[in-house]
Amino acid sequence: MPILEHFENEHSSDQLQRLNEALQSGMFMQVRMMLNELPAADVAHFLESTPPKERNILWRLINTEREGQVLQFLDDEIRNEYAANMEPAELAAATRHLEVDDQADILGDLPDKIVKEVLASMRVQDRHRVEHALSYPEDTAGGLMNTDLVTVRPLVTIEVVLRYLRMKGELPVATDCIYVVDSEDKFIGSVSLSTLITSQPDETVEQVLEKDIHPIPVDQPDDEVARVFERRDLISAPVIGKDGELLGRITIDDVVDVIIEDADHSLMSMAGLDENDDTFAPVVTSAKRRAVWLGINLITVMVAASVIGVFEETIAAVTALAILQPIVPSMGGIAGTQTLTLVIRGMSVGHISDNNFRWLMMKELGVSVLNGLLWSLVVGMSVFLWFHFVQHSEHATYLGITIAGAMVINLIAGATFGAILPVMMTKMDIDPALSGGVVLTTVTDMVGFFAFLGLATVFFL
Amino acid sequence: MPILEHFENEHSSDQLQRLNEALQSGMFMQVRMMLNELPAADVAHFLESTPPKERNILWRLINTEREGQVLQFLDDEIRNEYAANMEPAELAAATRHLEVDDQADILGDLPDKIVKEVLASMRVQDRHRVEHALSYPEDTAGGLMNTDLVTVRPLVTIEVVLRYLRMKGELPVATDCIYVVDSEDKFIGSVSLSTLITSQPDETVEQVLEKDIHPIPVDQPDDEVARVFERRDLISAPVIGKDGELLGRITIDDVVDVIIEDADHSLMSMAGLDENDDTFAPVVTSAKRRAVWLGINLITVMVAASVIGVFEETIAAVTALAILQPIVPSMGGIAGTQTLTLVIRGMSVGHISDNNFRWLMMKELGVSVLNGLLWSLVVGMSVFLWFHFVQHSEHATYLGITIAGAMVINLIAGATFGAILPVMMTKMDIDPALSGGVVLTTVTDMVGFFAFLGLATVFFL
Repeated sequence: MPILEHFENEHSSDQLQRLNEALQSGMFMQVRMMLNELPAADVAHFLESTPPKERNILWRLINTEREGQVLQFLDDEIRNEYAANMEPAELAAATRHLEVDDQADILGDLPDKIVKEVLASMRVQDRHRVEHALSYPEDTAGGLMNTDLVTVRPLVTIEVVLRYLRMKGELPVATDCIYVVDSEDKFIGSVSLSTLITSQPDETVEQVLEKDIHPIPVDQPDDEVARVFERRDLISAPVIGKDGELLGRITIDDVVDVIIEDADHSLMSMAGLDENDDTFAPVVTSAKRRAVWLGINLITVMVAASVIGVFEETIAAVTALAILQPIVPSMGGIAGTQTLTLVIRGMSVGHISDNNFRWLMMKELGVSVLNGLLWSLVVGMSVFLWFHFVQHSEHATYLGITIAGAMVINLIAGATFGAILPVMMTKMDIDPALSGGVVLTTVTDMVGFFAFLGLATVFFL
Repeated sequence: MPILEHFENEHSSDQLQRLNEALQSGMFMQVRMMLNELPAADVAHFLESTPPKERNILWRLINTEREGQVLQFLDDEIRNEYAANMEPAELAAATRHLEVDDQADILGDLPDKIVKEVLASMRVQDRHRVEHALSYPEDTAGGLMNTDLVTVRPLVTIEVVLRYLRMKGELPVATDCIYVVDSEDKFIGSVSLSTLITSQPDETVEQVLEKDIHPIPVDQPDDEVARVFERRDLISAPVIGKDGELLGRITIDDVVDVIIEDADHSLMSMAGLDENDDTFAPVVTSAKRRAVWLGINLITVMVAASVIGVFEETIAAVTALAILQPIVPSMGGIAGTQTLTLVIRGMSVGHISDNNFRWLMMKELGVSVLNGLLWSLVVGMSVFLWFHFVQHSEHATYLGITIAGAMVINLIAGATFGAILPVMMTKMDIDPALSGGVVLTTVTDMVGFFAFLGLATVFFL
């Protein structure tokens, strides 16, 4: 994405409001005018915020030459839909002026057949650049990098470099430094634009270059790239191949997109949703997607319910158990989710390793034991008091003891599984953010029912 | 934070591993040497990943002159602990070389008394700058901005500007452009370093300046600043006061911190955790913090259980109801959480407004009706078949009908509340990410138990 595209309008939310009113009242000419005055990022945002029917009208009102700009800012699902419906030649023309990593991004998600046709209708040089970009997996440094960079040799003087740059007339967007390479194109170091400006003209590049910059390997996963940028406060970084040859550069704006997407992924996948799905997708599309998650949950809750089935006789003897039955599983699930979330986040920021995992697990167990004792006392007493003084039940004492004991057991189970699950799942290559919660609550439900009704059976049968 | 501090070591994770081994085997001299060779960000990360006892040893091994650097990278909770324990003069000395926004960040969280003492031991000029930075709320543009910037007047030539910059010898870190102001210091526009380099020396600043840059008001909330940076792919932006006077600039590295903190907040607060808490906090500290969340949950689950209590007679008549009882609330909770998450995220990225909320709610209802019909059919049939053919229960037909009917009702309730809750809570100034899930599942539990046991009462009593 271009870094220096600044905003043409200060009050964009007012504009969006007026745009919406014009759309509602069917003044399409006006909508078209307003749409094409807005920055492309705002148009994309407006499309994303509009239900499908109106969205299709809006899309047709956008000037052809801006379609590529808008496409690059759209969420994956919507973008793929529109891109796949464009004529290959039209798509090639629309994306011609984008940066090569953004072109590759748009094409990368489309069916192979369309990609081939689009590539075929590009100019030869463009096609080679895009094909090259497409050859790197999207979620690696190679997929993030741009190939337009300025390189110089170490022995030229600053004066020569400045003259050369002035002759070029324009630098690639978001250029904050130029790169120094040897005769075999191997990366040596970089010189920031501010160094160029503040150095003496007769100094050589070699005298002022920054060597302490460690380039990013082209196959590094994008989340690791993001962590390096974050930790080092980088604005751009060079990307190198296996033999140290300079291949391109990654700029912070694309890294910010990775960071936001990863965060979105954690949040959405906890509810079994996909961060790339369209919020305003049609009912049937959404219903189909959500059905799977509900189905998985149905299976897990039926498994948990089957544990209750084992103790049907006990419940028949003391119906009060059915009333108290949700409390223990629920508390175990909450305590376990806290540990699970803490560990998943600790792993994702790199705080948790083999060195400290045992310590952390012992700590989480300790927390659960303390809270287990505290809340089992509270709940045990409340249950006793209620059933003794209000319900005048003969079972009050045992009901209190049962629920208190089961609570301690389940809170400990929650902490243990909450800590172990993400580690186990990561080793098995399963995303703990996606399924950790479901597995955990299935476990705490089962342990909760079993501990509560099992203890009750000991006391009452 | 400094933007151009690049990483001094490629294999930092190997280094951390060796550091850990040295620490475990008590070779403190070696640990000290290794610690002081690592970049400050890595030292901070290592401290964050270490349990409290070893962490305190490590902190004492860090060279005094690096303490400020390390402090600025530490998580809030740990940083506050160490900063508050330093002598005021020592803290003033340690933070002297930091950027003013980072100094203000460190001081801002400390008790007023300490801040006063630290300020008193600073040099006058430094003190004024920090006091000025502290006067802006931390979570606004003013709290994010730096005041070290290069300004020029519109009528000077590029040649003069370049000569002036060369004389300065060094530009503030992360300078990607210089700012143009009038005689009253009001912001006019900016000139990027690449424009400076590629323009003709005899052109004036006025001829090449970029006017399309809309500066950020000093009181804009930091999450809005982050959205502007993200949407416009900015690297830096000027900050202005009420009368258009240039006050400072915000750089992308500080914005990335805001983005990451916001994402962390959403994720952690869903489990009732605080993103600033130390993962390796002592057991008692953590237990106290978590106790509140467990207590809130205990109250909500007891309220839900009281709904079951209303139907004790029905359960006494048909014990099978106790077994099936968790299924309907669970499914409603899952469906509701999906809608809730979708709406919370849609609101936070700005996709949802008054214009499209009705549409979205109708869509979510539609999704729940479809999935309600599908899964109530599945669960109704399963329950009928199981109780009829396996348990030979006379109640099989009605149990199937009851659970199917209750499921449809509860899925609709889940979608309705999942959509309305975040809107309502935001209007009441409550963070829906923090408490939305708890309120929602309390509702779906209650509706679930009421619908299931209520329908059962109609059929069986």
